Amino acid sequence: MNAISRPPPQRWNQLAEDRAERLARAAHLACGKQVAAGQLVALLEALLRPGDRVCIEGNNQKHADFLSAGLARVDPARVHGLHIVQSNIALASHLDIFDSGIATKLDFCYSGEQGVRMGRLIKQGRIQVGAIHTYLELYSRYFVDLTPRVAFVAAQSADRAGNLYTGPNTEDTPAVVEATAFKSGIVIAQVNELVDRVPRVDVPADWVSFVLEAPSPHHIEPIFTRDPAQIGEVQILMAMMVIKGLYAPYQVRRLNHGIGFDTAAIELILPTYADSLGLKGRICEYMSVNPCPTLIPAIEAGFIKSIHCAGSEPGMERYIEQRSDIFFTGPDGSMRSNRVFCQLAGHYADLFIGSTLQIDLEGNSSTATLDRITGFGGAPNFGSQARGRRHASPAWLKAGAESADGQSRMPRGRKLVVQLVQSFREKMQPTFVERLDAWRLQQDFDLALPPVMVYGDDLTHIVTEEGIAHLHRCATPAEREQAIRGVAGYTPVGLARDRRVVENLRGRGIVQRPEDLGIDARLATRDLLAARSIKDLVRCSGGLYDPPKRFRHW
Amino acid sequence: MNAISRPPPQRWNQLAEDRAERLARAAHLACGKQVAAGQLVALLEALLRPGDRVCIEGNNQKHADFLSAGLARVDPARVHGLHIVQSNIALASHLDIFDSGIATKLDFCYSGEQGVRMGRLIKQGRIQVGAIHTYLELYSRYFVDLTPRVAFVAAQSADRAGNLYTGPNTEDTPAVVEATAFKSGIVIAQVNELVDRVPRVDVPADWVSFVLEAPSPHHIEPIFTRDPAQIGEVQILMAMMVIKGLYAPYQVRRLNHGIGFDTAAIELILPTYADSLGLKGRICEYMSVNPCPTLIPAIEAGFIKSIHCAGSEPGMERYIEQRSDIFFTGPDGSMRSNRVFCQLAGHYADLFIGSTLQIDLEGNSSTATLDRITGFGGAPNFGSQARGRRHASPAWLKAGAESADGQSRMPRGRKLVVQLVQSFREKMQPTFVERLDAWRLQQDFDLALPPVMVYGDDLTHIVTEEGIAHLHRCATPAEREQAIRGVAGYTPVGLARDRRVVENLRGRGIVQRPEDLGIDARLATRDLLAARSIKDLVRCSGGLYDPPKRFRHW
Repeated sequence: MNAISRPPPQRWNQLAEDRAERLARAAHLACGKQVAAGQLVALLEALLRPGDRVCIEGNNQKHADFLSAGLARVDPARVHGLHIVQSNIALASHLDIFDSGIATKLDFCYSGEQGVRMGRLIKQGRIQVGAIHTYLELYSRYFVDLTPRVAFVAAQSADRAGNLYTGPNTEDTPAVVEATAFKSGIVIAQVNELVDRVPRVDVPADWVSFVLEAPSPHHIEPIFTRDPAQIGEVQILMAMMVIKGLYAPYQVRRLNHGIGFDTAAIELILPTYADSLGLKGRICEYMSVNPCPTLIPAIEAGFIKSIHCAGSEPGMERYIEQRSDIFFTGPDGSMRSNRVFCQLAGHYADLFIGSTLQIDLEGNSSTATLDRITGFGGAPNFGSQARGRRHASPAWLKAGAESADGQSRMPRGRKLVVQLVQSFREKMQPTFVERLDAWRLQQDFDLALPPVMVYGDDLTHIVTEEGIAHLHRCATPAEREQAIRGVAGYTPVGLARDRRVVENLRGRGIVQRPEDLGIDARLATRDLLAARSIKDLVRCSGGLYDPPKRFRHW
Repeated sequence: MNAISRPPPQRWNQLAEDRAERLARAAHLACGKQVAAGQLVALLEALLRPGDRVCIEGNNQKHADFLSAGLARVDPARVHGLHIVQSNIALASHLDIFDSGIATKLDFCYSGEQGVRMGRLIKQGRIQVGAIHTYLELYSRYFVDLTPRVAFVAAQSADRAGNLYTGPNTEDTPAVVEATAFKSGIVIAQVNELVDRVPRVDVPADWVSFVLEAPSPHHIEPIFTRDPAQIGEVQILMAMMVIKGLYAPYQVRRLNHGIGFDTAAIELILPTYADSLGLKGRICEYMSVNPCPTLIPAIEAGFIKSIHCAGSEPGMERYIEQRSDIFFTGPDGSMRSNRVFCQLAGHYADLFIGSTLQIDLEGNSSTATLDRITGFGGAPNFGSQARGRRHASPAWLKAGAESADGQSRMPRGRKLVVQLVQSFREKMQPTFVERLDAWRLQQDFDLALPPVMVYGDDLTHIVTEEGIAHLHRCATPAEREQAIRGVAGYTPVGLARDRRVVENLRGRGIVQRPEDLGIDARLATRDLLAARSIKDLVRCSGGLYDPPKRFRHW
């Protein structure tokens, strides 16, 4: 063997030794793996060391809120400078720890309502942001350079041995626990109840270090519920265009819907409008989404064959249990969600359709607004070309053939990525802009790149109340800009269109108005909605859907 | 609620009812979940129905070979027309079932040595191929439209309850089992031994329907082992160029190495050549690869901080156990691999480097050769732009900035995708060709598209014995073609270069020769290898690496 410069004899199991040491320090607080809720702060102070990388499970919906609140109460003199890795920053406690110096560094995906406060903390230098990620890339880094030393997760119940039952809200738990437990890390689970026997094992006890019964059930946010009562005729018209102008000609069978009233409108006219076009069994058969209540009528009408979910939705539990042919459920009857697989399934699907706040002249879109760090979540993953995909489908081949730019002789498939937006959003803010706020945000927060949600070159279509722009069929960037202007309505961007070019694009079917699609806009009324209220959804579910209180208006 | 055309009252739990029926039919064959090996054929005949979608676990390495062989022995009059979904087709039994009509349809990822026979069966009409996938997209479809009704998996051991221990070779098992078990499917596991207590739980018993102790341990293929004795000076020169010309200037810390002697050469000169350039702690710190024995010297030298593996490699068990700071291991000491997470981690890494059989003038590459259906495996996923990525790194920003084509004003990062090839492969076949064999294969097998491994527009670099071509920096397709010709050596493609253009590219650093990089080709000798034989690797591991017999030449 060659003489290589070898370092002095090394210890190769330091992480495992360190874990054993920490567990020994905390042993007096636990009975087996169980720790009393009142001992949480003591447990964390015994286990954590300054600078530790800590993952706090914060999903779209489920939050390890008890553990997070406990972390905010540790003594900053003992525990400080933590590096937090966490998908969603959603609760006040998630940021309190930065205020007090318990944590200083953050790698994350998404921050909804906490975005403004987070922006302030960044500017104050209290949060040093590593990067803003999409879900899958953050989970990936848990197995690369952001492996947690300690992870906080939430589950429905645990047995004495520490087996966890996450029930319908499995979400990120398996990814977080696997990365931590198998790199000699420490996994702490808060559970709603300790039981003799869990209904099923979602996470094996081997992978869990400590279990605490929280004083109240973990936080669950019903973010996928949309009340059909709030869906207007413009949204219904847009939904008709999506179905007749995109889903039908592209034969879109496998897809992901973003959250919102716009996509809810599509779901609610499947059993009426799409059915009247003879599309049942030909579109929207396989979905990767959360169990949105507005899917109920389409499921009941036999439109949808299978749905895999990233997480659950409060009130949908009994319905899911009684529709096990559609959803992925366990032997206990409740759903098994998994965000990793759902994100993957959506990425490799034929179409993603979602909304955004701003679109520029290249089709780049962003949900970033000034003074607020919102992050990405899953949209950039769903809304990007799956260049690692190799299997064909009619939608993928058609979009690929239409995208051929003449530069490459090699044919390739293409994913349909659709932005579904009204030209103006609330408070008459134009959706279409010359320059995204993302550019100012980049400067403000010293980001490496402007925070773009979906890049223009990944986008194939924009649908507004004015029509559909088939961007992928444009021959030049200039033509593409006019196609965008051509559906931008009365926004300054829309008004500055070159009418001649837009009419030319219309002649070539690259811009399509409702009438070009044979859609009578007068038929776009709420009569088309298969359910016009939450109560309708309940009725349609045969009483199985049990909406959260705030959605009950009767 | 609107009057929608509702189908007659529907049964919504047919899959679960069907599973219960099948389990009842097989109950007399099982004691709890355990079935005697001799009852396998009877079990399969009781459980399976014509046309079932069946997933046979066939990984890179681990195979459910006992179950697969059993399937080949069922009565085709009772069980036929199965739709097989399976990542790797590697064993004769995988194809025997198509010969006999037990199976007729196939969705898969990769077929190595069985490629020729598979080609013949396709032409005979005995195999109807749904599609050829990459790993992640096939797993994704398990949760969409290719959910298995019955899955065959392999594990190291099981306890009486049916908890599975997959040990270091977890690979695809969690993905296969999760998709099947939670859509009311049936999971059958073959295990090497039944034990009272598994060393750790990799798959909970809840998810498993039947367990059989196989008469012999499941098949494991040592496909990542490369004997350093077979590495030549050309490969060492290429490895020097990769390190000095790519890893160093791009600061590549997170990466994936494809299998082969070319990448093994890189690994083996990290502790010598890269160290002499002062690159320790600056490159190659985090890897997503299997535990290739040729990584041992770089690990021992302190180059590599962490490795996450898709599967294991025979003989590396004790070494991995004693290097738990580097590998992901469980409380039992053995590795936890997981192909889904490893593929994801590699996809979002900064660089992929691999080899191929053919590259065309656009940089499209393929491992397809005539009369053989080989498929893709993981390379298209590793070797494609991660357009859903949003976090920055020096490598990603630099490659992105260099790729700017002037068409878009929006800056974006870029993954480094490198093909590392000699201009001629074995039997003096040129690697560089005007037209890929993939085109003829498309015609021959009536594929939707030519089977391309890595598309030219995803590729950033080609490295050959002649030099490096920085393809992403080329301004036009014509320039790109000349950059490819400029490193294509004495192949017809290389000889047809426009010398003036290539010299211009060299002047701009787009084509680089070893001397342009300050590399003295005379130093490219086997002296640079930190290990020059399998025996050296064993020594370097402190005797922990225990190579398979076929690699022991002493």
